[in-house]
Amino acid sequence: MMKRYFPALAWLPHYQARLFGADLLAGAIVTVMVIPQSLAYALLAGLPAVVGLYASILPQLVYTFFGTSRTLAVGPVAIIALMTGAALSQVATPGSAAYLEAALVLSLLSGAVLVVMGALRMGFFSNFLSHPVISGFLTASGILIAASQLGGLLGIASNGFTLWERLSTLWQNLPDIDPLTLAMSASVLSFLVWVRRYGKTSLKRLGLPAAAADLLARTGPILAVVATTLATWLWQLQTHGVAVVGTVPAGLPPVGLPWPDASLWQTLFVPALLISLVGFVESVSMGQMLAAKRRQRISPSQELIGLGMANLAAGVSGAMPVTGGLSRTVANYHAGAKTPAAGAFAALGIGVVTFTLTDWLYYLPIATLAAFITVSILTLVDIATLRATWRYSRSDFTAQAVTIVLTLGEGIEAGIIGGLVVSIALFLYRTSRPHSALIGRVPATEHFRNVARHEVETASHVALLRIDESLYFANARYLEDTLYNLVASRPALEDVVIVCSAVNLIDASALESLEAINARLKDSGVTLHLAEVKGPVMDRLNKSSFPQQLTGRVFLSTYAAWQALRRSTD
Amino acid sequence: MMKRYFPALAWLPHYQARLFGADLLAGAIVTVMVIPQSLAYALLAGLPAVVGLYASILPQLVYTFFGTSRTLAVGPVAIIALMTGAALSQVATPGSAAYLEAALVLSLLSGAVLVVMGALRMGFFSNFLSHPVISGFLTASGILIAASQLGGLLGIASNGFTLWERLSTLWQNLPDIDPLTLAMSASVLSFLVWVRRYGKTSLKRLGLPAAAADLLARTGPILAVVATTLATWLWQLQTHGVAVVGTVPAGLPPVGLPWPDASLWQTLFVPALLISLVGFVESVSMGQMLAAKRRQRISPSQELIGLGMANLAAGVSGAMPVTGGLSRTVANYHAGAKTPAAGAFAALGIGVVTFTLTDWLYYLPIATLAAFITVSILTLVDIATLRATWRYSRSDFTAQAVTIVLTLGEGIEAGIIGGLVVSIALFLYRTSRPHSALIGRVPATEHFRNVARHEVETASHVALLRIDESLYFANARYLEDTLYNLVASRPALEDVVIVCSAVNLIDASALESLEAINARLKDSGVTLHLAEVKGPVMDRLNKSSFPQQLTGRVFLSTYAAWQALRRSTD
Repeated sequence: MMKRYFPALAWLPHYQARLFGADLLAGAIVTVMVIPQSLAYALLAGLPAVVGLYASILPQLVYTFFGTSRTLAVGPVAIIALMTGAALSQVATPGSAAYLEAALVLSLLSGAVLVVMGALRMGFFSNFLSHPVISGFLTASGILIAASQLGGLLGIASNGFTLWERLSTLWQNLPDIDPLTLAMSASVLSFLVWVRRYGKTSLKRLGLPAAAADLLARTGPILAVVATTLATWLWQLQTHGVAVVGTVPAGLPPVGLPWPDASLWQTLFVPALLISLVGFVESVSMGQMLAAKRRQRISPSQELIGLGMANLAAGVSGAMPVTGGLSRTVANYHAGAKTPAAGAFAALGIGVVTFTLTDWLYYLPIATLAAFITVSILTLVDIATLRATWRYSRSDFTAQAVTIVLTLGEGIEAGIIGGLVVSIALFLYRTSRPHSALIGRVPATEHFRNVARHEVETASHVALLRIDESLYFANARYLEDTLYNLVASRPALEDVVIVCSAVNLIDASALESLEAINARLKDSGVTLHLAEVKGPVMDRLNKSSFPQQLTGRVFLSTYAAWQALRRSTD
Repeated sequence: MMKRYFPALAWLPHYQARLFGADLLAGAIVTVMVIPQSLAYALLAGLPAVVGLYASILPQLVYTFFGTSRTLAVGPVAIIALMTGAALSQVATPGSAAYLEAALVLSLLSGAVLVVMGALRMGFFSNFLSHPVISGFLTASGILIAASQLGGLLGIASNGFTLWERLSTLWQNLPDIDPLTLAMSASVLSFLVWVRRYGKTSLKRLGLPAAAADLLARTGPILAVVATTLATWLWQLQTHGVAVVGTVPAGLPPVGLPWPDASLWQTLFVPALLISLVGFVESVSMGQMLAAKRRQRISPSQELIGLGMANLAAGVSGAMPVTGGLSRTVANYHAGAKTPAAGAFAALGIGVVTFTLTDWLYYLPIATLAAFITVSILTLVDIATLRATWRYSRSDFTAQAVTIVLTLGEGIEAGIIGGLVVSIALFLYRTSRPHSALIGRVPATEHFRNVARHEVETASHVALLRIDESLYFANARYLEDTLYNLVASRPALEDVVIVCSAVNLIDASALESLEAINARLKDSGVTLHLAEVKGPVMDRLNKSSFPQQLTGRVFLSTYAAWQALRRSTD
């Protein structure tokens, strides 16, 4: 019981020196690697860069105790940062104290939502975000984020929630491009792209072992940060038009609760809910993938609690909303983390950095961070999945396309809610017009197949109708139409058998329709039978008076129905 | 083609004198019968009584040409009147010119909604209002309407949207009860209840044929109207505290288009949509029932157009929204109507009444109409259905209970939308945790049954898992969990067969989950197979690369899978 709510109790008592060494090394490596992205994603959310560091300290420490994934690393991530920025811009001006306070409220709210969902075991809610909707949302967000970074890369201002707003403000400010910033962006971008594509191979060619080469190649961003920061300091580039991070408060994050008025909590509730859901989906699918590789299991409900506690920790330590981050988790995994302790060591490492190096952050160019975000984010844009979805299912593609168009054109909330609603509506529409088939006996067997696809035995006075869907309110009337049309088109018909092998549910509406069908067929002199009704469905039917009303019988199998009805007249 | 859009072309050219006599008689009878209800439902909507007459003229005439039901009579009905009143009270004060204008706008809007839905063949939308939600809504509306008439019966004022508002304003005004009104209400109520229960039997005992007795008993309301109107005129009761209908404009309805500002159209759109849906559902189910009795068919799409044209006609002729009314339709049916011409004759009859008798309406007591509404409406309250739903399905009952509680406590719109949302959510929740069963072979047959319910053959290295639900985004993750738990709990497992006999759909999310399951089982040394995949589902799978990735085979039947896998090791 205790272990369920404090998963750390499962590994902490057995912690050994051997694990300590590996975890400490992984923690140190992750510390170095996540600094650029932590700073960058805070800026993406419109927050001071240091807020990204804060978000990598206490939240990660807290997750260590409450999370079930051995390797997940928690902190600010791009999508959540984008969603945070969109939510906060609705309630305050970026850069103001109110904006920062709203960020803390958003962290607390999304933490509360996650913890409550975890306690009530409501993780299944996230299942309603279908894969196509999520991948569409990620693609669109990637495009939005890339557009939002163009301003930083060019040294001009851009703002807005939608792609068009972003691009039109950029267009207006295009004459103000700063050449020095552009030069720096171009160098950093080229360097990052080069490192990402050829870094590992080049280092291996220099004689490094594969693992070390891989790790070293991942330090490209921190090298870019150090180099451009030093250059800016050396030549005082900030006085020549290069935007820099500027003054950040030194020391550890301030701990305390924000106390805004009640209306702010209300306004931010829906954004917090969406941030929680998206963060949870992203984090859990990554956690599951990594756990599977090591034959471990994670508990989605406890993950909700772990991520929720991490966000509550963010809210009280001056930080933005967090979730499991792909790049920091992969770094942690490849750096050889054995237990969640590695995450704790990384958190401590970032704490030390925050305590000691904030003076240097003054000189860090915004353009470097924008280049970093741009390079990382374009991996989100996944055209191959779009194409695969189109090929596989027009219906899924529709949901995906709606998500993308709404996200780009109307903003993040509209995109994700629209995708959710469209995918549910399309599913309901599909089930509201079920596939059904008249079936006949494959000669000399007990098998029955669609008369339109196979050579089968039939009889003019018997119709075997297989309905390929649960019978519920949305298709109850359709069922009536199908049967009435069948009876109207076959004057010789005496017996109709509804084959229920694919009927997993008959709800009260469908029951009423079956009663109506039974009565109407009786008036027409046609007997209604059922076959292959599943146990749970029959149990329920027996609670109604339908089995007594039924003019015909309930057969265990289609074959039994065929034997009985054929014999009766042949 | 022409006949599809103008169903009147199907019967009008063949119209004969023999039919004319029957239709004319039916029309005359219906004219007399629907006057009280037309007046009463207009008052229920907070509109001048004469608006109810207007709503029975042009709309009925227009429906005659566009509707497909032979006997449906169109006009104001109780539920629609209640919904109309609730919608209009949000935008204007009852009794004002703006209120009346808004009623016309509502008619036009709901007419437009219906015609558009008919043209786009979107009648299936109404299927999403499940039977339990509709019956719950009718029951709650019946209670609301009865409560709203208490004021009229007692001669005091009451208002509000919810049951509590109604009852509390009634309670406050209770000291103002008018004794004369109360006496009149009590007499009319007793008379109407007596006629309804014993009228037909008594008349038959007096020697009348059954059909004539039935018809004459139905004229009870008009007798009450005539008697109380005459009494009021004779003793000038309106000067002694009895509320009367008062001055109504003489003559035919004013024809013209209302021209309010755009915001009114927007505000009334959702109410108009709900009025259209509820009216359509009520009208079509009644029309289908009556058509079935005479072996006729109605076309739901054309009914949408017919009802839509009727409402457009209402909007341009000073009338409130209309739909097929149960009591007027039953009257028409029993009075022997043969073709829609009977409806046209009734419309002309009411036109004559409106033209000539409006002076007399001045003296018609409100209490008489309130008594009429109360007696008619209590048949809507259907406790037996509630009990049956509870017995059959807790899930359906939940949707029904939510509809009732919301309708009574929050108003009509909240009730119907809440019921709709809850029933969809419960359906999705149910399908998100599908029933699944490990199955084994019933000895010496080709049948496979649940191992937990039956004595069947199994093998420790083969698991046959039947999933009783379509695989889609809401249960994709659940599928993964089910399979991973299965594999984790059975170390000897070598082959897993997913039996898809009840799987009617595999969407893109479920496909991704299947791919993940396949890959993960492969890592664990377990082979994944499918069996009994339906034609349309397999067609779709073949558009993806899954069949190539699949480590095992796709078997045509569970028996084939069992034969192949058992043989391979035994």
